[in-house]
Amino acid sequence: FHDRAGPKMAKSKFEYVRQFEADDPCLPNCWLVVRIDGKAFHKFTDTHHYMKPNDERGLSLMTRAAQTVMSEFNEIVLSYGQSDEYSFVFHKNCKLYNRRASKIMTNVVSLFASSFTLYWPRFFNSQDLQYPPSFDGRVVLYPSDENLRDYLSWRQADCHINNLYNTCFWKLVQDKGLTPNRAADRLKGTLSSDKNELLFSEFNINYNNLPELFRKGSVLIRPKTTDGESLSSERSINNHSKGHEGKTSKKPGSIVLHTDIIGKQFWEDNPHILNSKI
Amino acid sequence: FHDRAGPKMAKSKFEYVRQFEADDPCLPNCWLVVRIDGKAFHKFTDTHHYMKPNDERGLSLMTRAAQTVMSEFNEIVLSYGQSDEYSFVFHKNCKLYNRRASKIMTNVVSLFASSFTLYWPRFFNSQDLQYPPSFDGRVVLYPSDENLRDYLSWRQADCHINNLYNTCFWKLVQDKGLTPNRAADRLKGTLSSDKNELLFSEFNINYNNLPELFRKGSVLIRPKTTDGESLSSERSINNHSKGHEGKTSKKPGSIVLHTDIIGKQFWEDNPHILNSKI
Amino acid sequence: FHDRAGPKMAKSKFEYVRQFEADDPCLPNCWLVVRIDGKAFHKFTDTHHYMKPNDERGLSLMTRAAQTVMSEFNEIVLSYGQSDEYSFVFHKNCKLYNRRASKIMTNVVSLFASSFTLYWPRFFNSQDLQYPPSFDGRVVLYPSDENLRDYLSWRQADCHINNLYNTCFWKLVQDKGLTPNRAADRLKGTLSSDKNELLFSEFNINYNNLPELFRKGSVLIRPKTTDGESLSSERSINNHSKGHEGKTSKKPGSIVLHTDIIGKQFWEDNPHILNSKI
Amino acid sequence: FHDRAGPKMAKSKFEYVRQFEADDPCLPNCWLVVRIDGKAFHKFTDTHHYMKPNDERGLSLMTRAAQTVMSEFNEIVLSYGQSDEYSFVFHKNCKLYNRRASKIMTNVVSLFASSFTLYWPRFFNSQDLQYPPSFDGRVVLYPSDENLRDYLSWRQADCHINNLYNTCFWKLVQDKGLTPNRAADRLKGTLSSDKNELLFSEFNINYNNLPELFRKGSVLIRPKTTDGESLSSERSINNHSKGHEGKTSKKPGSIVLHTDIIGKQFWEDNPHILNSKI
Repeated sequence: FHDRAGPKMAKSKFEYVRQFEADDPCLPNCWLVVRIDGKAFHKFTDTHHYMKPNDERGLSLMTRAAQTVMSEFNEIVLSYGQSDEYSFVFHKNCKLYNRRASKIMTNVVSLFASSFTLYWPRFFNSQDLQYPPSFDGRVVLYPSDENLRDYLSWRQADCHINNLYNTCFWKLVQDKGLTPNRAADRLKGTLSSDKNELLFSEFNINYNNLPELFRKGSVLIRPKTTDGESLSSERSINNHSKGHEGKTSKKPGSIVLHTDIIGKQFWEDNPHILNSKI
Repeated sequence: FHDRAGPKMAKSKFEYVRQFEADDPCLPNCWLVVRIDGKAFHKFTDTHHYMKPNDERGLSLMTRAAQTVMSEFNEIVLSYGQSDEYSFVFHKNCKLYNRRASKIMTNVVSLFASSFTLYWPRFFNSQDLQYPPSFDGRVVLYPSDENLRDYLSWRQADCHINNLYNTCFWKLVQDKGLTPNRAADRLKGTLSSDKNELLFSEFNINYNNLPELFRKGSVLIRPKTTDGESLSSERSINNHSKGHEGKTSKKPGSIVLHTDIIGKQFWEDNPHILNSKI
Repeated sequence: FHDRAGPKMAKSKFEYVRQFEADDPCLPNCWLVVRIDGKAFHKFTDTHHYMKPNDERGLSLMTRAAQTVMSEFNEIVLSYGQSDEYSFVFHKNCKLYNRRASKIMTNVVSLFASSFTLYWPRFFNSQDLQYPPSFDGRVVLYPSDENLRDYLSWRQADCHINNLYNTCFWKLVQDKGLTPNRAADRLKGTLSSDKNELLFSEFNINYNNLPELFRKGSVLIRPKTTDGESLSSERSINNHSKGHEGKTSKKPGSIVLHTDIIGKQFWEDNPHILNSKI
Repeated sequence: FHDRAGPKMAKSKFEYVRQFEADDPCLPNCWLVVRIDGKAFHKFTDTHHYMKPNDERGLSLMTRAAQTVMSEFNEIVLSYGQSDEYSFVFHKNCKLYNRRASKIMTNVVSLFASSFTLYWPRFFNSQDLQYPPSFDGRVVLYPSDENLRDYLSWRQADCHINNLYNTCFWKLVQDKGLTPNRAADRLKGTLSSDKNELLFSEFNINYNNLPELFRKGSVLIRPKTTDGESLSSERSINNHSKGHEGKTSKKPGSIVLHTDIIGKQFWEDNPHILNSKI
């Protein structure tokens, strides 16, 4: 871990290879979303004895890692997580790393992965992490507010659909003793209404009473200040070379919600998310 | 962490947003290098009391994380690390993730970051990791063997230049009591030969006798089998969706060397690195 | 010019090279602008004895070629030209060639170049075209209406600034007999107001009375129908493989204006340009 | 067509839109091929009464346009054309326009299109061009000499396959009076050998005696100098801003061949094509 201040010398003969490195700047004025996904988490959750269909420890750990990412990157205006995925929405005017896609996505995904690993024991106590997890990530651009909201709705609808299915599936397996194959057969072709009915009639469960964490996923936003601005927008967001320490006091926090973001209520209540200036 | 087998429903209204996601396939028949770099590691090494100019624990941890990456991705034919960076060379014909750059670099960098974090206590014992480290990553393509070798030579020359400088710098600071500024002034404008002379005359150090780990960095390659093929090239490398476990027995190991890779000797001794077929 | 219906055979051995061809789709929901520029037109206009500072034949020929492009691509909602450049604005939701940038820009620029060449004699009569002209082209995306309008304002402001300068420059050269170098010296550091004053006091020219063609450039839009829709938006715009002929009767025309598009009046008068649906 | 030397002023408010323009540099050290294709040339050849299956005037005009492109861009080492397509191979080390793909492909395709249009009367005499033709273009990179040769083999094999088919097809239609549908039925499922036999037995034609122009397409290369270097490699190839005129005397010519480029003979006879240095 050298000081890089040293003079350059004989390297020059090889330095032409720098020309093979290309920048990949993102189009300005578009919402920039980094979505990360756990790699092979079906296997990972089995190995680590996650509760099915939802493991609160696992979901909370994901959110803890996402909060670390949000506190490092002030340009993130909202994050949304469900299952083994998290989406980070960077302000459409953010200049982070000159909007270079590779740089943004690798910083986010590596910080998420190291946080997940570092904070594991806080959520899983004595149960050790068996091997290092990995995540894939991608950058996607959305030109309009509507496109961005539709993207987030898509992910939250995905959460709902999968959770309803999985709640039924695991009830059939865990309470009725069906094999996984038979449980899947039983659910094949059913509509949402059929599944709600199945939960109610056979298990006396009102799906809408299940925890919102499971049904809605997790929404992380900045705390509003008294004048309605979000905290991160008040601060300089230029300097990302200083490392993680020493700015703790200035780090904006994030608030965790489990609420509907498909309807317009959330967005009317939090206009600063899409409208803040940077 | 849901089973994704559930049926798709109301999502359809929002699913058009998938069209905003674009693939980023790499040109075929080019060596594909993922280079990762520690983010703000000057600060990180200060916080964690790394020895200067080289901390063997830190370098060994980097290599341990790199080995995890190599055991996960059989397509890697060689890795090279020095300071807070590591380069992973994927076979020019590798089809991993259809050569999608984002997918490859995020998987590599996140696995590296989680491994670094998970294995930290093995190298730093009771000294705790203070915060989750992050790394940035990029993909670079090299069309010819010569370009690839020049890239690796560039990184190893960089290791040498920085290490020679830092060895002098820290000797002046630690043994002679110079301030960092005065040590830097003292070294300003010096050539390699001047620095070698300085080490020898003032500190009785023959630079060439310092550990090769510090002077050459770390080269990870596959063990050769008896018939001269590298182990990874014998195996199927298609399936990357199965997770990390359950294939331990088949995982190819990697050998750690601290040797010159600028000259041709290394490449003549290990022709399988560039010539293996997949 | 073969019929391509023939069976495929021994080609298979080589066909792997198709994998080296990559698509380059543009982000959806962004205004897509193709801007073309004459290559080395300083030389071209000298060779062909263009009048300075403006040659009406040359400008009209540019617009004639642009109209050919507009009649071929119904997705173009507006074109703007000045000097040796033309910008074609494709509807933000256009699906032309699956929004592949290369395909769009090469079709536009080649049709423009062949039209310029074919229609040359209609504007320059007996003066022959001395050599084939070429144009470069690029695709640029603008996520918002405001970005697009600012782009067009940028080009029209460029037209104004250059025309004011050139009008002064050529008056000094042609009427006062200054050498080009002395004329340039005379104008160095002058403001717009200075140049207006110079034209008025020395040449009795009121700049604002010069032709709008020279001062504003050329704006091509679709004719409005009686119900306020633009013609092109009424038509199917799917099929681009049928060639140029046989659909003449359906081709939407374009109207040529020389008017201000920086202020909001133009856009209020023509809301269909940005608001038409496809 | 203004002198662009004028001062910049009020444009500044809009000039931020420049940030939306992105460069698209090609990877260094790869052969860079621009392939252009006539758009809707089935229709175009019908409208202009091309002879079937091959029109020598049309093919010669394509080659005339390709020669114009080659004389403008010295970095082109070889061009290959057949039917309504032409491929231009730029030297793997060429620096033209900093290897920006958009700039290269639009300049090539527009010069080709304007040349095709300008030189039309030389080949079609009194038969007028009915409308401006357009071409699409793309840039494809090939990292190795083998990849490049396979690409060219692919195109020449395509020429052969289509020409053999079309020769049979049009003989059946023109000489035997079959309808196009019946001719296509007759050829369905036939092998090359079947088609050769058909031509021989029914039309007394030995396919291999047909003109090589039709069977092999057109290969354009630089004339060799006495010392075995190609002419273009001797010359400075830096300046592309000077326009077309005034360097006529220095323009390297190109030689038109109709020969096999799939086998190795051609490449052994012309080693300078792939091996010239720039």
